Amino acid sequence: MTTANGTKSPSTSQPLLPQAAQSLVDSVDAFLFDCDGVIWKGDKLIEGVPHALQALRSLGKKLVFVTNNSTKSRKQYERKFTSLGLDVSEEEIFSSSFAAAMFLKLRNFPREKKVYVIGEEGILEELKQAGFSCLGGPEDGKKKVELKTNFWFEHDKSVGAVVVGLDQYINYYKFQYATLCICENPGCLFIATNRDAVGHMTDLQEWPGAGCMVAAVCGSTQKEPIVVGKPSTFLMDFLLERFQIDTTRMCMVGDRLDTDILFGKNAGCKTLLVLSGVTSMLDLQDPSNEIHPDYYASSVSDIVDLSNSLTKGQ
Amino acid sequence: MTTANGTKSPSTSQPLLPQAAQSLVDSVDAFLFDCDGVIWKGDKLIEGVPHALQALRSLGKKLVFVTNNSTKSRKQYERKFTSLGLDVSEEEIFSSSFAAAMFLKLRNFPREKKVYVIGEEGILEELKQAGFSCLGGPEDGKKKVELKTNFWFEHDKSVGAVVVGLDQYINYYKFQYATLCICENPGCLFIATNRDAVGHMTDLQEWPGAGCMVAAVCGSTQKEPIVVGKPSTFLMDFLLERFQIDTTRMCMVGDRLDTDILFGKNAGCKTLLVLSGVTSMLDLQDPSNEIHPDYYASSVSDIVDLSNSLTKGQ
Repeated sequence: MTTANGTKSPSTSQPLLPQAAQSLVDSVDAFLFDCDGVIWKGDKLIEGVPHALQALRSLGKKLVFVTNNSTKSRKQYERKFTSLGLDVSEEEIFSSSFAAAMFLKLRNFPREKKVYVIGEEGILEELKQAGFSCLGGPEDGKKKVELKTNFWFEHDKSVGAVVVGLDQYINYYKFQYATLCICENPGCLFIATNRDAVGHMTDLQEWPGAGCMVAAVCGSTQKEPIVVGKPSTFLMDFLLERFQIDTTRMCMVGDRLDTDILFGKNAGCKTLLVLSGVTSMLDLQDPSNEIHPDYYASSVSDIVDLSNSLTKGQ
Repeated sequence: MTTANGTKSPSTSQPLLPQAAQSLVDSVDAFLFDCDGVIWKGDKLIEGVPHALQALRSLGKKLVFVTNNSTKSRKQYERKFTSLGLDVSEEEIFSSSFAAAMFLKLRNFPREKKVYVIGEEGILEELKQAGFSCLGGPEDGKKKVELKTNFWFEHDKSVGAVVVGLDQYINYYKFQYATLCICENPGCLFIATNRDAVGHMTDLQEWPGAGCMVAAVCGSTQKEPIVVGKPSTFLMDFLLERFQIDTTRMCMVGDRLDTDILFGKNAGCKTLLVLSGVTSMLDLQDPSNEIHPDYYASSVSDIVDLSNSLTKGQ
């Protein structure tokens, strides 16, 4: 077995065996966790997570939760963590809903302009908290269109950005609204919270992710969005400025190769794929896969259990 | 002015001046017309169309109507033509809804398998007429999903093809249904009626086209569809077998470069862009545009009016 050397990413991934787990824990100051498929599936905690997080905290590790799921705000995520018996604070949570708001804030998006949202409450809450005026979201979920002669679909000309995230209340009205803003309002930004194809919106199944709605808007506008969630570097840059930790002493733990692992690798973090979510061993080992994490394990609890087994064995 | 030589397509497009119009009419046996933006906009006829079609018919020209709009069946289009005062028969109409049904028929799609539809009545009618069992369509427009613990979204394992077209009743339920069929039913086909970004669903405005829904399903499945409408060659091959006309003696008349004109050029037809629909002179002359029709004119009536002006002038 090759032990982790802590300096470079191998071209193929290694299973997280006890020695590698110990080395990982020793060489990392901050663990970045994806949530869906890593901490929970839908509303169900993944086994062993509370114990693992507690153990890492007791070793003085910083824990950060980075989720592409934009349906909730950081505050709503804090409540979800609490409801599942996990003690996580808003400051430790970085959701793509928050990233969208921070992107507009750092870009000095004019306060007199509005933001049209395809997405759920999380995006609206974060945008409002950052001081922006929003339209759309769940409210437009019940709106219908009439494809009739002389009908004119009005849209607000003061919309200067469209944010698209996962939206279980998606409809044709929203697609038309977003398309008109992006194509007809001069300089209107097209921002995607993320492009995940699917996600564990429930514990038992995967469902279309933001990548579905984002692709639809690309399809009608023929334009490409600015992505603010994983794997884009925007969220990492923001996070690094907040925490001031060397990325080589950070480990990204996730269940998706094309978002979580790529996000970690792009930033120079160590990377650990957990097989508790959307990616299987078959996916990881598929010859067409070009994204190789440093390590893979069955779930988050392996980090602590495997390194503990070594300590106990010595 | 360069006259039409009837043999090759110039790298840039020429305005349809009187002599070119005469030469076009003389050298063409069949005119293929797109409908939205060419014959009508929404439910309004484009000026001069009845006269132009009548004049071409009286010259013995075969007229064919090829539309990517899958919301109607050929029968429904026939009724639309009639309601607008145009005498067009079902046999002259080739819609992408019909193309989807013909694709499955020519591929010997098993009768015991079902077809899931994202789209409207036109697709369902054509599929049923061709003898296939369908699910989805408008009926699923009112269905809602519940993203709750222990909820299991059932889908029919006997679905062997998903057909995606324009759907003004699109929702998350349909995206999940289509995604599960394509990803989980072995060998399930993913068929797109077309990929038009937008279309004149009403006379006054453009609306997201099938390209919007198709892209969304690509986004959630990470798969690419088989396209049966314009500009794919499927519809043209089918049409040629039906009519047995040399493609060099055919002219495709359309308002879209990336579907109509490309469709005509791919098949070796003459091509005429009319500016009565989604494409403007600016779009045509944009340096990024790589699709150049042989001719462009303001509308269908120019074909006849310009060639007549020459006859009268002689």
